[in-house]
Amino acid sequence: MANAGFRESSVVFHPAEVNAEMPAVTEKSPFIAETSSAAARAVRGELHVALALRHAGVLNVALRYEVQGPANAPVVFIAGGISAHRHVSASGEFPEKGWADELVAANRTLDPSKLRMLAFDFIGSDGALDAPIDPADQADAVAALLDALDIEKLHAYVGYSYGALVGLQFAVRHPQRVGKLVAVSGAHKPHPFASAWRALQRKAVALGQLQCAEQQGLSLARQFAMLSYRTQEEFGERFDAPPEIVNGRVRVAAEDYLDAAGASYVARTPVAAFLRLSESIDLHRVDPAQISVPTTVVAVEGDRLVPLVDEVALVEGLGTRGNLRVVRSPYGHDAFLKETDKIDAILNSVVNK
Amino acid sequence: MANAGFRESSVVFHPAEVNAEMPAVTEKSPFIAETSSAAARAVRGELHVALALRHAGVLNVALRYEVQGPANAPVVFIAGGISAHRHVSASGEFPEKGWADELVAANRTLDPSKLRMLAFDFIGSDGALDAPIDPADQADAVAALLDALDIEKLHAYVGYSYGALVGLQFAVRHPQRVGKLVAVSGAHKPHPFASAWRALQRKAVALGQLQCAEQQGLSLARQFAMLSYRTQEEFGERFDAPPEIVNGRVRVAAEDYLDAAGASYVARTPVAAFLRLSESIDLHRVDPAQISVPTTVVAVEGDRLVPLVDEVALVEGLGTRGNLRVVRSPYGHDAFLKETDKIDAILNSVVNK
Repeated sequence: MANAGFRESSVVFHPAEVNAEMPAVTEKSPFIAETSSAAARAVRGELHVALALRHAGVLNVALRYEVQGPANAPVVFIAGGISAHRHVSASGEFPEKGWADELVAANRTLDPSKLRMLAFDFIGSDGALDAPIDPADQADAVAALLDALDIEKLHAYVGYSYGALVGLQFAVRHPQRVGKLVAVSGAHKPHPFASAWRALQRKAVALGQLQCAEQQGLSLARQFAMLSYRTQEEFGERFDAPPEIVNGRVRVAAEDYLDAAGASYVARTPVAAFLRLSESIDLHRVDPAQISVPTTVVAVEGDRLVPLVDEVALVEGLGTRGNLRVVRSPYGHDAFLKETDKIDAILNSVVNK
Repeated sequence: MANAGFRESSVVFHPAEVNAEMPAVTEKSPFIAETSSAAARAVRGELHVALALRHAGVLNVALRYEVQGPANAPVVFIAGGISAHRHVSASGEFPEKGWADELVAANRTLDPSKLRMLAFDFIGSDGALDAPIDPADQADAVAALLDALDIEKLHAYVGYSYGALVGLQFAVRHPQRVGKLVAVSGAHKPHPFASAWRALQRKAVALGQLQCAEQQGLSLARQFAMLSYRTQEEFGERFDAPPEIVNGRVRVAAEDYLDAAGASYVARTPVAAFLRLSESIDLHRVDPAQISVPTTVVAVEGDRLVPLVDEVALVEGLGTRGNLRVVRSPYGHDAFLKETDKIDAILNSVVNK
């Protein structure tokens, strides 16, 4: 562990996690020996670093990470959408459901008994960092985390949605630290239509904030976001029932689903986290010509947020470093989490190459 | 004028408009003789009828109409989206801009010097009728208006968006009163995804109402609606500039445009009118097999609200009475008001047939 020499940063380890974070020590521990074979060993940690943010100056940020897999295995960093987090998949140590359990598993390309899977909570996701956050800042945070964990180079970075944008930024800013990049459902810049859609979600929050209904605003914002993550086709199949009139108001078939989606999001998301990470997507801009890392772009036909044409433009800009894979799915932007067989097949051809 | 014999209705004419509404009288007037040739004669009127609403019982509703064109010419009823109104096109009498000036004009199929163009304000559009309004109610209101104006049968009904839904209902309920129907950007039922989108707009209004910020809620609702009326392609071309950070918040390129669209809508739209007409779209349901009137369905490829596949299903249901025309446009649902050359060419082949 190289935290002692980490530049400008104050590193805070939770005492209970110190052993787990130190592979040099833990490899000699009988406890680790017992679990380091097929069963993946998962550990969590938290450190604080001073990070020079592109739009907000130097600020102290928390890096909360989870790593799962053999200590000496190639490291794969995985990052999801703005509501994803460090807990990618369930493990013996952390048995709760992860956000990508179907992709990070023993029978998958991203097998935590063979690869060391690393993920973190995006900076700003705790709501404490209430300032404009550029995806470039997230990329620097990833680099700071690698420094702290003494990981010189990632075997691969697999990013989906916002995580793909951060990966593209990482490839531009820290090319020597990643062998290959997989960017799923993310392009070199946000589409203006999607940016408008997000701006209105943020306005819904602002409307709620006018008078102490912040959570209702956030719920509405999330419900609007859900429409951008999914497709007409899915809604057409699921919610074809005629509307009801309830208390003199028309209520359509999808409203129960959307209400529930909004409520569950509000329960787990600080308002500032949503606002700052939503903004962050709109601040994203990368020149594909500046990316030297071999990059596989996975596009989903029918993605309402990230149109295929933008991903084609990204791959064109990448030239010989770029490779485009297209997935058809009724799940649109959320296909990464739904079409897991198709995604795994692509990852297999890239990550294990 | 047959208002004397109009069943169940209290008819109120504005005194200043009485002459104008009586073609039998005005035809003899020297003033009319002067203007009844190429220059279209436009008149407005208002009457009140008791209407049996499908979901709200018998209520008194206002019928505000405008008619333009020679007294004995074939009558074409024209109806637009929920924010359209009786003033379709500018005239000598009412020189202000109409909502379909590019389609109802001397050089167009809908030439008010040759056809008698009739339109009305949808019931509920004044905000006074605050109850669930079925599109079938609007169709009955059109029939009541025809009774009052002594128009036995329309040569054609041309409806766009909500106006198309009302036209389909009219064809089911009053088939003997219309020769042909043109339904642009409207199907036999709303798509569940579009219904969800509208439901969230209504929630934005409700959130505003919670805050005593009803108008901000309505503005936000309209802005969300704008995204459904337009396309990614248009936004991609118009709003490709990077965002700015204003007072510590990210502001994207489309926000000025959307703010202005919201403000102008709020200035002309009662909140109850928006809510009840938005709901009305979701209450729409028609069995195409019940339509006996020859019907041309005009679909716009890329319409986010009314997917082509639904209009294909409608035309399939119409059998030999149906005819499908497809327009390609970057303006999506708003193509009717933007692709006026293409729409006029279609109207020419249908209305003048």
